[in-house]
Amino acid sequence: MNGAESLVRTLVASGVEVCFANPGTSEMHFVAALDTVAGMRAVLCLFEGVATGAADGWARMAGKPAATLLHLGPGFANGIANLHNARKARVPIVNVIGDHATTHLRFDAPLTSDVAGLARPVSHWIESCRDARTVAAAAARAVQAAAAAPGQIASLILPADTAWSPAEGAAPRLPAHGPAPVSADAVGRAVKALRAGKTALLLRGDVLRGAGLAAAGRIAAATGARLVCDTFAPRIERGAGRVVVERLTYRPGPAVEMLSGTATLILVGAQTPIAFFGYPDQPSELVPEGCTPLVLAHPHEDGVAALEAVADALGATTPPAPAPRRTPERPPAGALDPGSLMRIVGRHLPDHGIVSDESITGGFLHYTVLDTAAPHDYLNLAGGAIGDGLPVATGAALACPDRKTVVLQADGSAMYTLQALWTQAREKLDVVTIIYANRAYKVLMDELHLVGAVERGQARALFDLGDPTLDWVRLAEGMGVEAVRVDDTRGFEDAFAAAVAARGPRLIEAVL
Amino acid sequence: MNGAESLVRTLVASGVEVCFANPGTSEMHFVAALDTVAGMRAVLCLFEGVATGAADGWARMAGKPAATLLHLGPGFANGIANLHNARKARVPIVNVIGDHATTHLRFDAPLTSDVAGLARPVSHWIESCRDARTVAAAAARAVQAAAAAPGQIASLILPADTAWSPAEGAAPRLPAHGPAPVSADAVGRAVKALRAGKTALLLRGDVLRGAGLAAAGRIAAATGARLVCDTFAPRIERGAGRVVVERLTYRPGPAVEMLSGTATLILVGAQTPIAFFGYPDQPSELVPEGCTPLVLAHPHEDGVAALEAVADALGATTPPAPAPRRTPERPPAGALDPGSLMRIVGRHLPDHGIVSDESITGGFLHYTVLDTAAPHDYLNLAGGAIGDGLPVATGAALACPDRKTVVLQADGSAMYTLQALWTQAREKLDVVTIIYANRAYKVLMDELHLVGAVERGQARALFDLGDPTLDWVRLAEGMGVEAVRVDDTRGFEDAFAAAVAARGPRLIEAVL
Repeated sequence: MNGAESLVRTLVASGVEVCFANPGTSEMHFVAALDTVAGMRAVLCLFEGVATGAADGWARMAGKPAATLLHLGPGFANGIANLHNARKARVPIVNVIGDHATTHLRFDAPLTSDVAGLARPVSHWIESCRDARTVAAAAARAVQAAAAAPGQIASLILPADTAWSPAEGAAPRLPAHGPAPVSADAVGRAVKALRAGKTALLLRGDVLRGAGLAAAGRIAAATGARLVCDTFAPRIERGAGRVVVERLTYRPGPAVEMLSGTATLILVGAQTPIAFFGYPDQPSELVPEGCTPLVLAHPHEDGVAALEAVADALGATTPPAPAPRRTPERPPAGALDPGSLMRIVGRHLPDHGIVSDESITGGFLHYTVLDTAAPHDYLNLAGGAIGDGLPVATGAALACPDRKTVVLQADGSAMYTLQALWTQAREKLDVVTIIYANRAYKVLMDELHLVGAVERGQARALFDLGDPTLDWVRLAEGMGVEAVRVDDTRGFEDAFAAAVAARGPRLIEAVL
Repeated sequence: MNGAESLVRTLVASGVEVCFANPGTSEMHFVAALDTVAGMRAVLCLFEGVATGAADGWARMAGKPAATLLHLGPGFANGIANLHNARKARVPIVNVIGDHATTHLRFDAPLTSDVAGLARPVSHWIESCRDARTVAAAAARAVQAAAAAPGQIASLILPADTAWSPAEGAAPRLPAHGPAPVSADAVGRAVKALRAGKTALLLRGDVLRGAGLAAAGRIAAATGARLVCDTFAPRIERGAGRVVVERLTYRPGPAVEMLSGTATLILVGAQTPIAFFGYPDQPSELVPEGCTPLVLAHPHEDGVAALEAVADALGATTPPAPAPRRTPERPPAGALDPGSLMRIVGRHLPDHGIVSDESITGGFLHYTVLDTAAPHDYLNLAGGAIGDGLPVATGAALACPDRKTVVLQADGSAMYTLQALWTQAREKLDVVTIIYANRAYKVLMDELHLVGAVERGQARALFDLGDPTLDWVRLAEGMGVEAVRVDDTRGFEDAFAAAVAARGPRLIEAVL
């Protein structure tokens, strides 16, 4: 057995079952091992940003680490933006990054680079193998690190000679580091604040699902506390039958306004709310005057148990009122806009669908439409690095083949990782992608106005995607995905209903 | 004047006239300054890897620094792979990387990242601005660093508040650090070796153009020395009327074989030849037994003057025999293969065209066909990070609007930065892209055989791009580039001749 085989065997023994891959020469022995070891599914991605984003989507839905296989420093670098997102989303990923043989590194071949230097800024855990015999042990620790609550990025650098040289065997799975318990003091402080009133719970992480949501709902029902989630919470269970949680709004001023009147902002897996960008003469912390943030659970702590302990201490036994199921009204015939688009999505979203939202300006204002739609999981762009909508959907659809995945996707952002469509076609994934074709970096045009600059000349041109117009039907078909363009409400409803009824990848270019 | 305007004014004053941009909110003041300052052309790229690759192509042809404008750590990271290539090609680039306001950084907003940490592995020079008043000075030094011989990557990190706060004005241009002179000793050693015979000159850098090539040719004519260039020399003047230089072959064994019989390998801007990858039981240094490498000029030294000094010392006054002009024979009608494709390119390549070669397995074996074609510049993938063919061509075509640019482009590699086609259409660039559609990562299939693995199962699937087939006509048309698919020699010759005769971007999918 060589080091590569010991690595694949260890990953499988540690519960890693999928690897999003864009390998090169230095990863050849890992690739060969995929056919000698059972239990690891390799998924080819034609760009590394697709691989890392798909690993994020897979792990976000599966709740356990996915692996990536990346080629040297430049290949890894292509995956950094979506690893940044996964890191901020606290999603468990194990990156296997091939490197030159240790004996070859000193010669500064063309592809020689500082792999560890590139990996460090987006990795919680990093190790470079030096000996084939210790590769398996390092892999077991990488998986353990990735799975540590609430989820981390682990990067294992595998020089080619540690892959091809003899190794002894696989390493056994290491115990997982689960979430840390929350102290009784923290629970007591939260209970006291909730009894005093004027509280809001700011939620992020697994408290936005199942038992966490239920406990938060009991607390809200008993105390009148508001339930608010982080603006870009990675995953939320939403829709009919679930506890409704407000989403903290994006712009700093309105966000502070939204929280005004709150005496205590109880943080459960969330940090004190922060402006997405700093602006001249505006605060970075979005905490209104007179409001005190109070930590109930840090992200690595057991927020679900903490919420349950708080609910119990409050005697909050009344189950929360779940969201009713309401089919949004059919928008009138005519031109499509982001509001009518979201209503149509809400009308046809199937039960237990998955929504991957990278619609930026297009979807944000219409987020609440889906509060009463069919129950679904909602996935957000947690780290703000655009280009995760299509890859995250790709991974989520692989993890949940029996559920329909819907992507709400801005056109500008889609261009960063459009190669994901090919993997969707290759793997016959059940994904409907809706391109919000406003043909502009609309959010940046808004920002340009905010800084007081006039939208003209080169500045205007830098945010205009309309010359030439991107043809998303051709782009999708070019990668094997069936596609259609629509520009009115009836056309969109027909196309979306048909795509939901069918299986397999479809794309709808919705001209706005 | 704010910091951003002082920055743009300083860049222009320092001779930077183009900026390949994919800005975001934190770069808004730089964007606004582009309309208040004359002399900086902003070129929008829909993915940062296109921006950095285009800056490389522009600077490689213009011989002076191009700028990029990139958004925070993740946006920069998307450009790293092509900066790796530019770094290895020793091309001057100034990256302007926006960051959060210094006052905002400590709050760990979603897009907060270690920008300097990401930039360091691919930057020769790096500085993070702390005060708007010093931005101009830092920019002047960034351009000086980038322009230092033979060309460097300079990364200037611009926190948003150093862009929007008041500054005093532009900084004056700093003197350029040109190439260092080569010592008389080094010249003397080379002359002695050349007189002893059995020498080869290994060339890389600007010695592969104009006066350098002419001097090398005189030396070869006088001494019988072989002229060889680095396998991935960034830019070479080739074709009829130029001195012919052999290209060191890619595979380690054949490369050593090619150099066997050489007593002294004189390095002029090149390092001792190194295998692209390390392999078990194969040497990394490609130096045959009995051959001694001897440095005439390091990359930062004046190789052209060194070659001229050597030629003069040898009394080598006979001008070299230039390559004759020969039109390759028309291949017989029938299926297209990489050999017939290159012959057809050679038949129709216009005078003073530019060839951007990322054809990998497809073009490598047929490199010599263009030795006697029309005179042209040949640009190579210097750092091995795939995805530079289309962006480099984009930048080269912008730098040389009166010359035709031809891209020899492998299909797998093209997928990494296909967004370059949109910029070609937007800027109406005179580029003909030839996609070598073999629908596989062919080079990796070859490597899999080399490691003794059988091509089957998941390993085979990871190198197969045929399921689904990428439709390059649709992909190109989707970004506004006229395209056609051909699968035989007559069809390709018609399409290529027509594309050469027309102006503006065209793509030919050549099915192999």
